[in-house]
Amino acid sequence: MSKAQIKADTAPAASLGEMANAIRALAMDAVQAANSGHPGMPMGMADVATVLFTEALKFDASAPEWPNRDRFVLSAGHGSMLLYSLLYLTGYPGMTIEEIKNFRQFGSKTAGHPEYGHAPGIETTTGPLGQGLANAVGMALSERLLAARVGSELIDYHTYVIAGDGCLMEGISQEAISLAGHLKLGKLIVLWDDNSITIDGATSLSVSDSEVKRFEASGWNTAKVDGHDAAAVSAAIKAAKADPSKPWLIACKTQIGYGSPNKAGKSSAHGEPLGAEEIKNTREKLGWPYGPFEIPGHILAAWRGVGSAHEKLRAEWTTRVSAASPEANALIAGRDTKALVAKAIAEAKTAFTSDTAKRATRVWSQLTIERLVPVLPELIGGSADLSGSNGTRTKHHNSVTPENFSGNYIHYGVREHGMAAAMNGLALSGSFIPYGGTFLVFADYCRPSIRLSALMQQRVLYVLTHDSIGLGEDGPTHQPVETLSSLRAIPNVNVFRPADGVETAECWELAIASEAAPSVLALSRQAVPNLRADGAENLSAKGAYVLKAPEGKRDVTLLATGSEVGLAVEAAAALAKDGIKAAVVSMPSFELFRAQSEAYQRDVLGDVPRIAVEAGTAQSWYEWLRNPSDVFIGMHGFGASAPAGKLYEHFGITASHVAEAARGAISKSA
Amino acid sequence: MSKAQIKADTAPAASLGEMANAIRALAMDAVQAANSGHPGMPMGMADVATVLFTEALKFDASAPEWPNRDRFVLSAGHGSMLLYSLLYLTGYPGMTIEEIKNFRQFGSKTAGHPEYGHAPGIETTTGPLGQGLANAVGMALSERLLAARVGSELIDYHTYVIAGDGCLMEGISQEAISLAGHLKLGKLIVLWDDNSITIDGATSLSVSDSEVKRFEASGWNTAKVDGHDAAAVSAAIKAAKADPSKPWLIACKTQIGYGSPNKAGKSSAHGEPLGAEEIKNTREKLGWPYGPFEIPGHILAAWRGVGSAHEKLRAEWTTRVSAASPEANALIAGRDTKALVAKAIAEAKTAFTSDTAKRATRVWSQLTIERLVPVLPELIGGSADLSGSNGTRTKHHNSVTPENFSGNYIHYGVREHGMAAAMNGLALSGSFIPYGGTFLVFADYCRPSIRLSALMQQRVLYVLTHDSIGLGEDGPTHQPVETLSSLRAIPNVNVFRPADGVETAECWELAIASEAAPSVLALSRQAVPNLRADGAENLSAKGAYVLKAPEGKRDVTLLATGSEVGLAVEAAAALAKDGIKAAVVSMPSFELFRAQSEAYQRDVLGDVPRIAVEAGTAQSWYEWLRNPSDVFIGMHGFGASAPAGKLYEHFGITASHVAEAARGAISKSA
Repeated sequence: MSKAQIKADTAPAASLGEMANAIRALAMDAVQAANSGHPGMPMGMADVATVLFTEALKFDASAPEWPNRDRFVLSAGHGSMLLYSLLYLTGYPGMTIEEIKNFRQFGSKTAGHPEYGHAPGIETTTGPLGQGLANAVGMALSERLLAARVGSELIDYHTYVIAGDGCLMEGISQEAISLAGHLKLGKLIVLWDDNSITIDGATSLSVSDSEVKRFEASGWNTAKVDGHDAAAVSAAIKAAKADPSKPWLIACKTQIGYGSPNKAGKSSAHGEPLGAEEIKNTREKLGWPYGPFEIPGHILAAWRGVGSAHEKLRAEWTTRVSAASPEANALIAGRDTKALVAKAIAEAKTAFTSDTAKRATRVWSQLTIERLVPVLPELIGGSADLSGSNGTRTKHHNSVTPENFSGNYIHYGVREHGMAAAMNGLALSGSFIPYGGTFLVFADYCRPSIRLSALMQQRVLYVLTHDSIGLGEDGPTHQPVETLSSLRAIPNVNVFRPADGVETAECWELAIASEAAPSVLALSRQAVPNLRADGAENLSAKGAYVLKAPEGKRDVTLLATGSEVGLAVEAAAALAKDGIKAAVVSMPSFELFRAQSEAYQRDVLGDVPRIAVEAGTAQSWYEWLRNPSDVFIGMHGFGASAPAGKLYEHFGITASHVAEAARGAISKSA
Repeated sequence: MSKAQIKADTAPAASLGEMANAIRALAMDAVQAANSGHPGMPMGMADVATVLFTEALKFDASAPEWPNRDRFVLSAGHGSMLLYSLLYLTGYPGMTIEEIKNFRQFGSKTAGHPEYGHAPGIETTTGPLGQGLANAVGMALSERLLAARVGSELIDYHTYVIAGDGCLMEGISQEAISLAGHLKLGKLIVLWDDNSITIDGATSLSVSDSEVKRFEASGWNTAKVDGHDAAAVSAAIKAAKADPSKPWLIACKTQIGYGSPNKAGKSSAHGEPLGAEEIKNTREKLGWPYGPFEIPGHILAAWRGVGSAHEKLRAEWTTRVSAASPEANALIAGRDTKALVAKAIAEAKTAFTSDTAKRATRVWSQLTIERLVPVLPELIGGSADLSGSNGTRTKHHNSVTPENFSGNYIHYGVREHGMAAAMNGLALSGSFIPYGGTFLVFADYCRPSIRLSALMQQRVLYVLTHDSIGLGEDGPTHQPVETLSSLRAIPNVNVFRPADGVETAECWELAIASEAAPSVLALSRQAVPNLRADGAENLSAKGAYVLKAPEGKRDVTLLATGSEVGLAVEAAAALAKDGIKAAVVSMPSFELFRAQSEAYQRDVLGDVPRIAVEAGTAQSWYEWLRNPSDVFIGMHGFGASAPAGKLYEHFGITASHVAEAARGAISKSA
């Protein structure tokens, strides 16, 4: 590393090399203390990160939520000690040396991988490889969208990413860089830790790509530098900032575990402590005479100076933003949209209840979106190339293009995974409410990002249509059967499966109100009957409710969701002819129902035999079927290719089968 | 299209143009009759496919399973009528004109998307985009592996793929082409239907990549041709066959819906019937005067000639292979390995029961693999860059390299999705039993391919380690909590979670014996106690069994899997001290247990309160907990970063908690 000096106002000079070594020392000490973790990456990328933070990154450690800060995403999340070191050194609130010492311990802010929400300055949760890079595309997109709305004097930030070989090998990276290149997100700058090492050994064991050429093929600018040459890194970042015509890849050739005499450049530096002896050797080699977790005053002061270097810039920004319009402020800071949404949804429900047409819930969803867009400029729609099928686009939408970011609809392309991760980035940026569509079965293609929406408690809306064998002829590859259960299995995901227009509007309201959890809207391809004549109360809010109550004590409860609620209603009518009293319960959300009191749950489910019907497999239903006489009617394996009606008949998901099962259960339990 | 003529021995000449128009006519007629489907792609790629089948593809329609046939994969599976037309025209068994007329109808061979097993000649199930391309990498890899073992005079085939824009936008495509480029799979030839149209409209709405440059960046040869110029297509394929140094991308510029005067080149040609009027117009434009589903004799004869053109070549091959060694024949044709595996597993269990060391089940798995590799040359191991962590590699393994395919271990790189899809291709090729490792939580990254393993009934083994919060410090991004349930939800997947060394060996035996379903082996990072002293019988084969039976009538049943079975045993011992009789049931496979008789299930589960314990979430357990007094002990949300022991304590997954729950349930039910 060059001996370029930097000066902080309040401290004696420290060299960039010393500042980088502070990161290396903290990383190796913390991993050693935890007896687990990844020292190699922080040690290898310490020089690059030091240049980035001291010279380029616009941030104020005292105000981690400053909306116009540059974003820094550590996509190679296993190198978490790089981030934690920087947060500690620059003086982020709460990131004390004790937290560093408690790396990977229960309750610390310094989890094994960076966890969003654990500490200020962690912009996103990373670890699952490639996700951070794709989140960053959403953050950079958010900057463009927001700047187009409030002006670049208020919003004008860069998004920087440190990505590793693993990030770039994951397929999601291609979806992300392809989308970023298409949209010409020129303020996105990716620093690739090109260290030629993966866990199995040399990257040459498994990969021969020219990453530089690949990024260029997707419309990126590129540069190659020695990642231990501060001047070169600095020049490359400056060049990248000077040309925002396209996003930038800066390939930084580094040595993993830099400074470790016996492990640098080897996979043994990647994911385990260096060991006491090698740490001693490394201290000598680096010329770092300080004790474990000890950062000498002049180096810490220099770093703290970096952490506060943009205080004035931020103060000026605060002045500007306070003079801006209320609309601009609302968009930048976020606002409470509950009343607005409630009004739009109430109007939608009034319109829907007076509309007797049978429509697919995906169409009801589209009609709902059409009412939300005009009142919610926060809403950013999109689809993974199924706009018409998903009903995600309305007459109020304009496409976002590389030339014009004032639009409110993203053509994500056939990139479900990139879409979901970009939506996480959009949500994390704080201004927008993203929703994106694909077929329900292709939730599998973006499941790792859905899981992260849930883990990070982000409001991301997944509009997943064609939600059962009801899609018909496209066949089993396109027919979700296990997908509802598999999504319900993920903690902190709302899985909504509305039954008609009114429920669809209600579920949209709940999804937008759910600020700390993503939502799935599972919607039918096929038309469904209108079941709710009254939309005054949001009955879906309790997750399940009695849609049709018989007079007097019920004999059986019919539980259903979505397109099968109509079948349950038909079955109840047939049973009524035989004098059997069936209650029909619509269950648009298992999660919300689970959150109700036991008394409410008992009232809804009833102390009678239960017949559940859903055109999917049973797994998630057993929670509500706790009696041997209870019956599940649905799928028991994969679907088939045929018209939808034929498939419902073939698989026995019919009103008559439900009624028959009810009769059987009643006689069995009697 | 050029007017180049081909001659079939038994028929009058038909032009390539006429032969291609036969495909177009069948495609538009079948989609029209079904009133759903995708005419645009078959019509656009008819010329390319005609050149490929008439001039390049080595196949014998009368022997679809010929091991040395070229493989043809329609990765853009929505264009299924292209494949069905070709299978009908060339005379594959059972693919009659009635099947074509029954396109997308219940029970036909002609499902909406090509379904493996529905008809001979369908090499793989496609539709979920990008999968076919990645399967083809596995098929091309299988060719190299097999040729290295039996010689290129017996195995020497090409793998051809037709891929669309959607296939190339999916991230899995990057994993696939990167792996193929690295391994220099030069006999893989991808024909890209470069039609500039996706469902939402022009590809320019969402993508600006240079696909040619991208493939070149991954080490591919490339060519660009006019896909309607037969001579150019022919020359490009010849050039590709002449240079097998690297895989080939041939970008074929085509017009979607070619021949339709008003819809060609538009997204309206993609996914819906052309309509009666436009079909009439198209017939006129193409000069196709024949009725719906009518193929005139000279054109059908020409196509049938193509279908039988390699009969002699195949006969010669059959002669050669019959002279080859029994080992070569066994590998080419597959063989019954049950007895061999049973012997190796029996030996493993004997060794394991006399070994008192506590080991992680991932280590027991590695020890099992070590015994299987020498007797099973079919077994091809690998990992997505976690070889050491997954225990997938043993001393008997040699890495497959671009220069040497005699190895038996694939470094798949950080490409879980590409790995899984390539394993599907390996399995489909008929000679190998592939297994591949990653962390259990990253099953999400390859879930679409796992689903296809299941749908296609392929024997693919997923070795998924670090199967709970027991992995400790890496934290919630790496801790599967919902993953076991979500995998159990997929139909036709065996999810094995063995409890100790003996069970691990038993589950390996069952997984290899499971020829029509993929298997997941969920394995612990942390050491587990040895529980089975006797390995004589494969008790895991029934899915669940009583591991510890109390003397006399039991009071409670403790159900557990994997690393939690030891906790249940501890809990039972604690309960015994209080005079409570607890049976401990180990449940390594819910799927196999579900297949047992009701009587056996009742015997195992017992008519007493049940306490289930698994360090995951509850969803899949409710099936076995059907009484209000039953209790699930496990996770109720995401995990955390801390040492494993601390996490088990924090989340209450302990023997004392199990015992306490048992006492509570007994008193509640009493």
